[in-house]
Amino acid sequence: MQSQIIKKIAEDENISPKVLKIKIDRGKAVLVKNKKRKIKPLTIGEGLRVKVNANIGASTKNPEIKDELKKLKVAQEAGADSIMDLSVGGDLKNIRKQILAASKLIVGTVPIYEAAVKSEKKYGSFERMTNQDILDVIEAQAKEGVDFFTIHSGITKKIANNRKITKRKGGIVSRGGAIISRWIMANQKENPLYEYFDDILDIAKKYDIVLSLGDGLRPGAISDSMDFFQVSELLNLGILTEKARKKNVGIIIEGPGHVPIDQIEANIRMEKEICKNAPFYVLGPLVTDTALGFDHISSAIGGALASLYGADFLCVVTPKEHLGHPNQEDIKLGVIAARIAAHSVNLTRNKRLRKIDEDISTSRKKRDWKKHISLGIYPKAVEGITEKLKFSDACSMCGKYCSLKIMEDCPLV
Amino acid sequence: MQSQIIKKIAEDENISPKVLKIKIDRGKAVLVKNKKRKIKPLTIGEGLRVKVNANIGASTKNPEIKDELKKLKVAQEAGADSIMDLSVGGDLKNIRKQILAASKLIVGTVPIYEAAVKSEKKYGSFERMTNQDILDVIEAQAKEGVDFFTIHSGITKKIANNRKITKRKGGIVSRGGAIISRWIMANQKENPLYEYFDDILDIAKKYDIVLSLGDGLRPGAISDSMDFFQVSELLNLGILTEKARKKNVGIIIEGPGHVPIDQIEANIRMEKEICKNAPFYVLGPLVTDTALGFDHISSAIGGALASLYGADFLCVVTPKEHLGHPNQEDIKLGVIAARIAAHSVNLTRNKRLRKIDEDISTSRKKRDWKKHISLGIYPKAVEGITEKLKFSDACSMCGKYCSLKIMEDCPLV
Repeated sequence: MQSQIIKKIAEDENISPKVLKIKIDRGKAVLVKNKKRKIKPLTIGEGLRVKVNANIGASTKNPEIKDELKKLKVAQEAGADSIMDLSVGGDLKNIRKQILAASKLIVGTVPIYEAAVKSEKKYGSFERMTNQDILDVIEAQAKEGVDFFTIHSGITKKIANNRKITKRKGGIVSRGGAIISRWIMANQKENPLYEYFDDILDIAKKYDIVLSLGDGLRPGAISDSMDFFQVSELLNLGILTEKARKKNVGIIIEGPGHVPIDQIEANIRMEKEICKNAPFYVLGPLVTDTALGFDHISSAIGGALASLYGADFLCVVTPKEHLGHPNQEDIKLGVIAARIAAHSVNLTRNKRLRKIDEDISTSRKKRDWKKHISLGIYPKAVEGITEKLKFSDACSMCGKYCSLKIMEDCPLV
Repeated sequence: MQSQIIKKIAEDENISPKVLKIKIDRGKAVLVKNKKRKIKPLTIGEGLRVKVNANIGASTKNPEIKDELKKLKVAQEAGADSIMDLSVGGDLKNIRKQILAASKLIVGTVPIYEAAVKSEKKYGSFERMTNQDILDVIEAQAKEGVDFFTIHSGITKKIANNRKITKRKGGIVSRGGAIISRWIMANQKENPLYEYFDDILDIAKKYDIVLSLGDGLRPGAISDSMDFFQVSELLNLGILTEKARKKNVGIIIEGPGHVPIDQIEANIRMEKEICKNAPFYVLGPLVTDTALGFDHISSAIGGALASLYGADFLCVVTPKEHLGHPNQEDIKLGVIAARIAAHSVNLTRNKRLRKIDEDISTSRKKRDWKKHISLGIYPKAVEGITEKLKFSDACSMCGKYCSLKIMEDCPLV
């Protein structure tokens, strides 16, 4: 069974099943799917097609389940490869249950969110959350069928207590990172996700769950990129990666964040070196802090460049980033932008994917507008425009001065 | 006077006036402004802020002047650094006159368009256009005050007659390139823009016009990138650059086009080498042929990467590229995307520009939403969203689980 799946995936990825298997065995790639779920697993890793994850999830101010289910649908239609449910508002268990039931894609979560929300209710503050509260949530979500978890295990007590972090321009911008940091500071105990990492590995192993080691101290401003905190946490993630490999648990490493364009290559090389070529899942990176309302574009630039240098998995950033809770349109635009970034690198790796570019160019040369549009990254977005074109011989841009038409009619010499 | 301008520009560019002057003297940078125009000149070149050009212009199907004047306004508001009037429809002279009168930015044109349109009227076909027809248009436009011309001088008779170009996936996608190629094939004479390049240089010299040497054979499909035709034309542009330098005429080189992401660096290095560090003006590059409706994003990826490696000037590609004549909204979105690409590199070069990223991050950390939005790349686009935020303490994304708020209230240890 497993070998049949590997064969099919290898075919899609345009590599040999043998090579794919070696990549997975060595932790350079992961096969993501909870053993309880009946979906197609997703492979993420070195030299494979770069994949795209879309975050959805109810917020405290927008707790409606139906809105999130609509976003799931939109993300799937727009071509996302995976979904993360980041809900912190509403009935978390029910939202997750419905997303898991409706999603054809692998689903990830950040269990510390639910642990914090539950502790707020139970104790009045997430600072009073216990190790067992956290492990219970992880186990319960695993049992429900979640395919991968973001676990912020890299923030140790020593790092969290270093108050130089207040000098950062952007501070801590990871929700999980802030929850863990604050918990550590309030309790003056070690991060439970670090201390009980072995227990978490056992749960992951039991359900075939992949752990995505979160970057709770990722830079949230260009000026914070590659600072002491980011790199210290990454060094811990490297150590935890080795622990996970000994127990044969699949690991992904999460990465920045906000990164100046001339540091993107260094970020990828550093992660691949320190984390022994574990797949790299980047949250952007955003190449400027200023692209308010257009962060999907800033992220597409960073994500494409990161992919070129070896990032394996791109997290969608929507136009609503830094402004508010994204709606369906934001999710759609974010997924499309991330897919363009991923495809720009995928077409250089995979002949089957390159063929789409060739075919769209050939149809464009022939002004076969119908075929042209059908091959686009998201045909639905341009159908309105084709209507206006009425499939004329040349488009309204150049009209009779269409270069393709001029050359087609050209007398051959 | 000239030295006052240099001083002011050097200050903006955060370099010394002396260094700027050397760059201009050596042709590594150009100062663009027709001597007849009363506007601020624009500098483009090595190590300077990467600039952004927006194309506007009436098409045969949309020949209205007022629409193009509105697009000019939109492009200026969105932060373009220059404008090109690419009109081929309507009253070309009047459109140009009104654009020149209304534009605070430098204005470029492609004189071969007007020469072709006039010849169509005069002879029934642009194939019958004479050398003198072309030179007359160039001189007339120079006299009117156009600041820079795209001149497709690099396509020689030998290249145009090589029928292997029909094998290209994308063919010839430059309007000027197609006009010149077809003229050469029909007449079996040398390209007038190549043969009479010295006369064109004399006109440029007389009016202080910068020539942007067009890439009429640029790849219009990923699969055509860096092919025989693109590189052959570039080699000619290198020779013409040296000619221009002897006459002390400012030169910019135009570049692709559609380029796979792993060939962008090579394209920039090749241009800088062959054209002796002349400023490079890239038309994208688009990193995939498939981003129909989203080519501004594909172009932002390519443009950012090109800028990182040394491209100096980005031509806006709108979401309407490959689909039709862009409207005001398309121009706006295109300019913003190109500005994000340019800024991602500019912030690594210029401390004054980097400061904007720092300030927006600081205001974000403080949740000073009003200041935050005012510092964004295009505040108007997100004002509607701020209205909904009502400047609450945390945005609707995380609500009470705002990482910044969690850390701000944190007990210090």
